[in-house]
Amino acid sequence: MSVEYPNDLVEKVDQALDGFLPSEEIYPQVLYKAMRYSLFAGGKRFRPVLVLSSALTFDADVEAPMPTACAIEYIHTYSLIHDDLPPVDDDDYRRGRPTCHKVFGVDIAIMAGDALFAEAFSLVARLQKAGSSSKILAVIRELAEASGPGGMVGGQVVDMISTDDQVDLETVTFIHTHKTGRLIKAAVRSGAILAGASSNELELVSLYADHLGLAFQITDDILDEVGTLDELGKAPGADKKQHKVTFPLVMGMEEAKKTAEEEIKKAKMTLEDIRRDTGRLERLADFVITRSS
Amino acid sequence: MSVEYPNDLVEKVDQALDGFLPSEEIYPQVLYKAMRYSLFAGGKRFRPVLVLSSALTFDADVEAPMPTACAIEYIHTYSLIHDDLPPVDDDDYRRGRPTCHKVFGVDIAIMAGDALFAEAFSLVARLQKAGSSSKILAVIRELAEASGPGGMVGGQVVDMISTDDQVDLETVTFIHTHKTGRLIKAAVRSGAILAGASSNELELVSLYADHLGLAFQITDDILDEVGTLDELGKAPGADKKQHKVTFPLVMGMEEAKKTAEEEIKKAKMTLEDIRRDTGRLERLADFVITRSS
Repeated sequence: MSVEYPNDLVEKVDQALDGFLPSEEIYPQVLYKAMRYSLFAGGKRFRPVLVLSSALTFDADVEAPMPTACAIEYIHTYSLIHDDLPPVDDDDYRRGRPTCHKVFGVDIAIMAGDALFAEAFSLVARLQKAGSSSKILAVIRELAEASGPGGMVGGQVVDMISTDDQVDLETVTFIHTHKTGRLIKAAVRSGAILAGASSNELELVSLYADHLGLAFQITDDILDEVGTLDELGKAPGADKKQHKVTFPLVMGMEEAKKTAEEEIKKAKMTLEDIRRDTGRLERLADFVITRSS
Repeated sequence: MSVEYPNDLVEKVDQALDGFLPSEEIYPQVLYKAMRYSLFAGGKRFRPVLVLSSALTFDADVEAPMPTACAIEYIHTYSLIHDDLPPVDDDDYRRGRPTCHKVFGVDIAIMAGDALFAEAFSLVARLQKAGSSSKILAVIRELAEASGPGGMVGGQVVDMISTDDQVDLETVTFIHTHKTGRLIKAAVRSGAILAGASSNELELVSLYADHLGLAFQITDDILDEVGTLDELGKAPGADKKQHKVTFPLVMGMEEAKKTAEEEIKKAKMTLEDIRRDTGRLERLADFVITRSS
């Protein structure tokens, strides 16, 4: 089974990113070049697509939540730049291209990550016009909490201090719900908040996002092990080589696949309780479980 | 001449920081320990004191802008952690103590910086209650722009790529207005915004902050050269050793001192046009020009 991904949204996101991101002509050029290099490294823009799909589900216009959608991609990209650094994961390749620090140096890469993170909040605070000020504040809170010590950074740190000889399901779940899950949830919630979803609807899409995020990370772990160089844009088996804690490692490959399928089933069941056209969110769930990269 | 620094405000800021910052008992503890270690390394809390002093000038309560005041200290601390890293300035000591990465490792230090930056926005978005939502959004915009590529990070990058054999006054001014000046300006502006200063008053305190920030950085450069180990908490002459671009280097020590004095004079002249009790801001200007550390 192959599920169609909303490439029309990806195209809109790419255009918007290009428009929002400061020009490479600005001084100091090397900083803006490094930011653009990492932001336009390809990729399916999964988090921005989630923001837009969630907003569309609750009847927003596709352009309205665009600054927030792009800001989340800035945050995702910044986290990849810092995670790839030699003192952290020490990755030379990302999506088939040399990582930011391989091209621009470690010092510039640290700063390019910092700059993207700052620009994310600037973008939302300056340009997110749809939604009242209090809704926009709620979105900023989502992004900050999802990327902070109680979210992404906390997950990354546990990932760093855990090696595969001390691995258990609790640890791997903590890492993944924080490192990946929390920002995916923020994407889904932000779109819903800006579109004016009710608090009950917000709770339901949050639950959907929890299941979706977990399934997304499990399939990521699986793909890292079984994917090809061509599919991954980097050598397969990188997690194993780096002694990364993964779901297949902890529960075995078959059990990991089964768990991912169950999470997707739960995500879709949650959608059934929302009295809107949830087709877009449903198809994204199907995409996660059938994707090959 | 020695000018009294508002230590009563420093005490309130330290208490608030302790209350806002997540406990070291939270998992993963090493992350929260590293955040606290760097945040409680001493220091005069100059930026939070500016937020509070500016807010008090426009009749706010001292507690009202406290989340914003503390958030700016988070941002300042995060920038110090990242600037001290081996791939950047490679500093072993800061305020007389080993730098964050010397104690916790480079990987944790990168993440502790990232975590403090995220927490800064979380703090303002969650807890900054005084001021309407649109004023709080304006403050978030100040913080994000001051710390991003058009502010602090941009200044740091120019600092990194400039060495003393290619130094000119334009470059050193760019570095300092961006790396230090922009956040000092954001501190002064944020306090005024939250307190409801008029747009004319906001313009005037911004001008005050521009002059103050420049004088602050020039005196910092001067102190780095003439201060003692005890005053600086690190070896004097560090800038020279690192081939840092400084004002004394570009314009000579005497001219640098004269320029700092002139900037302080201009800062105080600007205050004369504000029809409020500007005594607090005036004393801070006097402090900057007379401080020995």
